[in-house]
Amino acid sequence: MQECRTGIRRQLKKMRFSETRDMLLEYINPVDTETVSLEELCGRVIAEDVAARMNVPHYDRSPLDGYAVKSSDTASASEGSPVTLRIVCEIKAGDTADHILKSGEAVKILTGAPIPDGADAVVKYEDTLYTADSVTVSQPLLAGENIIRAGEDVKTGDVLVGRGTAADTAVLGLLASQGIAGAEVYRKPNVALISTGNEIVEVGTALTGSRIYNSNRYMLAAEMERCGCCAVYEGCAGDDMSSIAGLLSRVLSSYDAVVITGGVSAGDYDLVPDALERAGVDILVHGVKMKPGMACVYGMYRSKPVIALSGNPASALTNFYCIGRSILRKYSGACDYVPETVQIRMLRDFSKKSRGDRILRGTMKVEKGMICMDPSPEQGNVIISSMRAADLLAVVPMEHGPVAAGDVLDGFMIR
Amino acid sequence: MQECRTGIRRQLKKMRFSETRDMLLEYINPVDTETVSLEELCGRVIAEDVAARMNVPHYDRSPLDGYAVKSSDTASASEGSPVTLRIVCEIKAGDTADHILKSGEAVKILTGAPIPDGADAVVKYEDTLYTADSVTVSQPLLAGENIIRAGEDVKTGDVLVGRGTAADTAVLGLLASQGIAGAEVYRKPNVALISTGNEIVEVGTALTGSRIYNSNRYMLAAEMERCGCCAVYEGCAGDDMSSIAGLLSRVLSSYDAVVITGGVSAGDYDLVPDALERAGVDILVHGVKMKPGMACVYGMYRSKPVIALSGNPASALTNFYCIGRSILRKYSGACDYVPETVQIRMLRDFSKKSRGDRILRGTMKVEKGMICMDPSPEQGNVIISSMRAADLLAVVPMEHGPVAAGDVLDGFMIR
Repeated sequence: MQECRTGIRRQLKKMRFSETRDMLLEYINPVDTETVSLEELCGRVIAEDVAARMNVPHYDRSPLDGYAVKSSDTASASEGSPVTLRIVCEIKAGDTADHILKSGEAVKILTGAPIPDGADAVVKYEDTLYTADSVTVSQPLLAGENIIRAGEDVKTGDVLVGRGTAADTAVLGLLASQGIAGAEVYRKPNVALISTGNEIVEVGTALTGSRIYNSNRYMLAAEMERCGCCAVYEGCAGDDMSSIAGLLSRVLSSYDAVVITGGVSAGDYDLVPDALERAGVDILVHGVKMKPGMACVYGMYRSKPVIALSGNPASALTNFYCIGRSILRKYSGACDYVPETVQIRMLRDFSKKSRGDRILRGTMKVEKGMICMDPSPEQGNVIISSMRAADLLAVVPMEHGPVAAGDVLDGFMIR
Repeated sequence: MQECRTGIRRQLKKMRFSETRDMLLEYINPVDTETVSLEELCGRVIAEDVAARMNVPHYDRSPLDGYAVKSSDTASASEGSPVTLRIVCEIKAGDTADHILKSGEAVKILTGAPIPDGADAVVKYEDTLYTADSVTVSQPLLAGENIIRAGEDVKTGDVLVGRGTAADTAVLGLLASQGIAGAEVYRKPNVALISTGNEIVEVGTALTGSRIYNSNRYMLAAEMERCGCCAVYEGCAGDDMSSIAGLLSRVLSSYDAVVITGGVSAGDYDLVPDALERAGVDILVHGVKMKPGMACVYGMYRSKPVIALSGNPASALTNFYCIGRSILRKYSGACDYVPETVQIRMLRDFSKKSRGDRILRGTMKVEKGMICMDPSPEQGNVIISSMRAADLLAVVPMEHGPVAAGDVLDGFMIR
């Protein structure tokens, strides 16, 4: 009952989740690329190093409304002996600064306007007395005062955005400010999602006997989309070997990856490992030393990752967060596919021990600047409710004793 | 030059950003609602308290593969004197448990299968010796051992999801597990986005003179979408009062809200406050005691929020993060529209003082479980590059002295 059914799987040794993840990541190369416009770029993973085409700002400019002057003209200015300069013209944002400022002159200048040649300082309106024709300054200005220099923000040739970066608000702003109308991005992998198990009923139909509604399909689809994939639910294949293998074969040829749930442990009706092999998948992992989420199969079909998770929602999600998510994020081109380890202070005891790593799910709380977690006392495999708003996972290392309130564990954020 | 042009605006006193935000929030009521299916629900804000229709699980079930027995039959079992029970049938997940177990009997049971009447414990395969017809147990079982009780996860009538909650992975799972096919959600507000300023050039056209590319439209659209809005760019109205007022009037009637950038301070070409009044907007705020982001106008057009931000990208974004984001999130129905205050340890000195609150932008770093930020030394209004991957804002309170590395400031996360 406990033995694997095939020779290859017999040799697979269960590892910890981090070792499993790192081993699998070696097999993953990002999908191919496409070019999209700035309008479509948000959230996409950039597939090239994008360099600045020009300085930002691309000209010296004024950060405020005032008067552009020669600082040397103001060197002697004081309250008792102010300096009055003649206003020769006005420059506003968008104008070309074609006047060359001479000694004794001032140019009225508006926020964002280019600094005219000959001027090397700007004095604020509020610090002057002015008429339509002249402006009076009663303190000296420093050379460069109130001038934003060309290239202060970005210099030509600077790498604006590195390959593997997801396009967020700042990336959009950086590219737009350079007039860059689009970028090469990784294609969003199309991932088929399959359920198995005769007990699974789709929402919208009546529940009979001990059947349960399919919740995994909605949760995993949402998480796959968060990884940068397009998730497509391809239905439930029941508990029949040939229908599971048939559906797998069909989706393996037409999708970039497959996620399948249910039937992955070693029970009588756990047919997925055999069905995967029958469909030509090279199985690399069968089970992981973690709880929940021990039951799983990971493999490759040529260059396509195949992820088989438990039918238990919390088990499936926990395994996905710890392993599958990194696989799909690397496959989608993201460079930060391994989550950063953070230290998490526990706000409650957790007494259960585990032979594998035990993963505690919870909501991040910040107390006095410390990242904290209140682990739900109910962390069982079927406890969907403990997943509510979980954005933080803490790891109780294998063979570790009970956790006391105040203990600090390593873990990571799910963002 | 510094005075407001109208009577009403003359009376508006600049407040701190938190006071401004809280005052404005009093004017905001969420938009109306609509019903969407589970497929469309992810990310939407739930507009009702959704109660559980049934227990989850809705029957007592086995968490593993094994044998369902009467615990009393095993009371005398020991290594030296094991108890052998007769296997009478097999139940798997999805089956109906119609056999009533009698003393001396065992039922082979698979993970997720319902516990038959008469049984009160499950023994794991690994803890037994078995044939096809009988199973031998060598230690006593406790009543309830290895049984997941109906309602252990969720009980009928429990509020699964509260009004104002954004539908995340866990919400989808909770609703699906109840067979709930959809939910009432707040409609996504349609928000018009308008640029102003003759210096603004759209990406895709050539840059001449001191003009600059429009980056605000892409950044603000992305942030408005993150607030749960549909952002539609309605073009740049230049620096002409009648064209600004005309475009405002048109979008105020056909959209749920408006965000406009540029022309909000008190310079000669800062026409937006007057244009807003001409279009019938009640102006509630003109300027905030903060830096960057001081220049802004907030108002209402009937029940529709109107947000006018600086043309400087970092100024516009910072003001939006501190004020506008909360407005649009409350308008979109979210209940957590005021960001939680967190303590942030500074990793670098920041010496500039400010008469208003100074907002430092940075990327969250976690060191020994503490939330930390390395404030970019360049935090000026035009410094788009310091917004790169900014997900954390720290507030140097007004009149506060220089900040030293190691100091702890209050702030909030942008998520």
